[in-house]
Amino acid sequence: MAKIKAAILGFGTVGQGIYHIVNEKREDLKKSLGLDIEICAILINNLAKERPETPGVLVTDDFEDIENIPGLQVVFEAIVNEEPAYSYLCRAIDKGCHVITANKVMFSKYSIPLQERAKSRGVFVGYEATTAGGVPIIKTLKNLLQVNSVKKIQGILNGTSNYILTQMRLEESPFEDALKEAQLLGYAEADPYNDISGQDAFRKLMILSALAFGKQPDWNEVRVVGIDEITLEDVRKAKDTGLRYRHVAEIEQDENGELYASVGPQLVGPDHPLYAIEGVNNAVSLDTNYIGTLTLVGPGAGMYPTASVMVEDYAEIIGKRAGFFITI
Amino acid sequence: MAKIKAAILGFGTVGQGIYHIVNEKREDLKKSLGLDIEICAILINNLAKERPETPGVLVTDDFEDIENIPGLQVVFEAIVNEEPAYSYLCRAIDKGCHVITANKVMFSKYSIPLQERAKSRGVFVGYEATTAGGVPIIKTLKNLLQVNSVKKIQGILNGTSNYILTQMRLEESPFEDALKEAQLLGYAEADPYNDISGQDAFRKLMILSALAFGKQPDWNEVRVVGIDEITLEDVRKAKDTGLRYRHVAEIEQDENGELYASVGPQLVGPDHPLYAIEGVNNAVSLDTNYIGTLTLVGPGAGMYPTASVMVEDYAEIIGKRAGFFITI
Repeated sequence: MAKIKAAILGFGTVGQGIYHIVNEKREDLKKSLGLDIEICAILINNLAKERPETPGVLVTDDFEDIENIPGLQVVFEAIVNEEPAYSYLCRAIDKGCHVITANKVMFSKYSIPLQERAKSRGVFVGYEATTAGGVPIIKTLKNLLQVNSVKKIQGILNGTSNYILTQMRLEESPFEDALKEAQLLGYAEADPYNDISGQDAFRKLMILSALAFGKQPDWNEVRVVGIDEITLEDVRKAKDTGLRYRHVAEIEQDENGELYASVGPQLVGPDHPLYAIEGVNNAVSLDTNYIGTLTLVGPGAGMYPTASVMVEDYAEIIGKRAGFFITI
Repeated sequence: MAKIKAAILGFGTVGQGIYHIVNEKREDLKKSLGLDIEICAILINNLAKERPETPGVLVTDDFEDIENIPGLQVVFEAIVNEEPAYSYLCRAIDKGCHVITANKVMFSKYSIPLQERAKSRGVFVGYEATTAGGVPIIKTLKNLLQVNSVKKIQGILNGTSNYILTQMRLEESPFEDALKEAQLLGYAEADPYNDISGQDAFRKLMILSALAFGKQPDWNEVRVVGIDEITLEDVRKAKDTGLRYRHVAEIEQDENGELYASVGPQLVGPDHPLYAIEGVNNAVSLDTNYIGTLTLVGPGAGMYPTASVMVEDYAEIIGKRAGFFITI
């Protein structure tokens, strides 16, 4: 059976999740796709750091080693920050690799040039994992847009912020304690700035904007507020009046095609669709012309949800390239 | 530009919705698919009945007229009941047509033979519209199953029942008044038995079961209870204690692969994910091994939501057949 050679860039939580799922589902993927997948290389930052064993896999801190693998076809990217991720993916595309990324910081900025580069090379960019973790909002939106137009998108796009707000309310934990807990559980990064400042939600909103509206608003004109100024006292007061804080990212297109976006905390009551979205969950609502409002809810972070949608991207891309159709 | 000839079987609410959307989106579909679509025939039950004008389209009450259209490639089916829908679709498949159905009564029973027949003829069956209206649960589930296994499915699958329960609570309407209103709004059929008895939700649950687990439980062993015995008094009592009635369909697979399903009203509190699902909305939650719990919420009935997902099925099938990939 023909083999697909794949590499993973970055071996943190998500990278390890991909490795685990690919190995666990290898036989099933063989059956459904008619092609075997082999993770043949992993790019890491620090060769000295302890990491799970990956027998038979080239582990390197030099991207050139990966680039030079003969017949490499798929690159899973789970690094943070714009660079060197963007350069690596450009080089992978130039070599004829499909790329599947979880990197929202990079993709929010480079989605258009990266996809154009892929198109001209006849390969695909999978980016389901960049936005809303395990929630398949990218595929759903792509499919909807075949027939519908989207008027507005509203959602909870940062699982860490939602987890912290939930813990502050349920456990009456101060902000700092809830943040520490989120870090211990692997939801928040060691440097939580992007999560709690609203920047992470903002980047995801920009990815959704590019897909839904074919463009993004001027980044400097979007008001972005995080959850870092919400005190336990604020949360208690809201609770006493039956309300909950939610960190909401939203974008709307007016009749002239202008985009209006904002990111920040909102107080919502029991009838609001985001009221019941608790813990590390994300939710995204799409207002469309034919379907009306469609909402997706699921885990917005975590090793397996994020890695799972990346392997689903792989199955979709390889299924298409192999000329058969993904059916059950 | 090559043209795809399509026919619509049944010209009620959903059939008319398809006709309208296909005509409104024709230019966009041309651009995205590189193929034009033409609705060239409509099958109706009663030629004497008044209906919207469809200039240039063959309108007939004889399926043979449709079967004999040279080069017909797609059949949209929006009839109710098993027969003659199933026979018509078999004949369409035998002629080499892709079929796209909204008929849950037929499809819950014949999903396996219909899909096998289509496979052997090299055509596709689209059935997103059979389950949960405008909510793309079929596509989401198919995609998830590439990597995940599903343990449990739980949802509100009948928009009419949910609309009636919502109106009884919000407007303090008796059951009969709320039902009449649902009929006026086009949510409930003239004969509302399938909706209010739970049978409609049951059929949709069986479609999800076939897809998620590759089989269905013994139909006779599933307890199916409708909303027809819930009184205004019951709803008021629940409301006074902060609870809401929801009509819930659920199915679970145990470790031995046995399926356990039930359909009936449940009382839920504000923290339950189905508490905030109001009106004609449907919701489906999928418990999966890697992603965790994913929930989709959207309109469970209505002309445009249902017709829209059928046209999306068309775009998906034709995109695949034409050998290109649906991307935005």
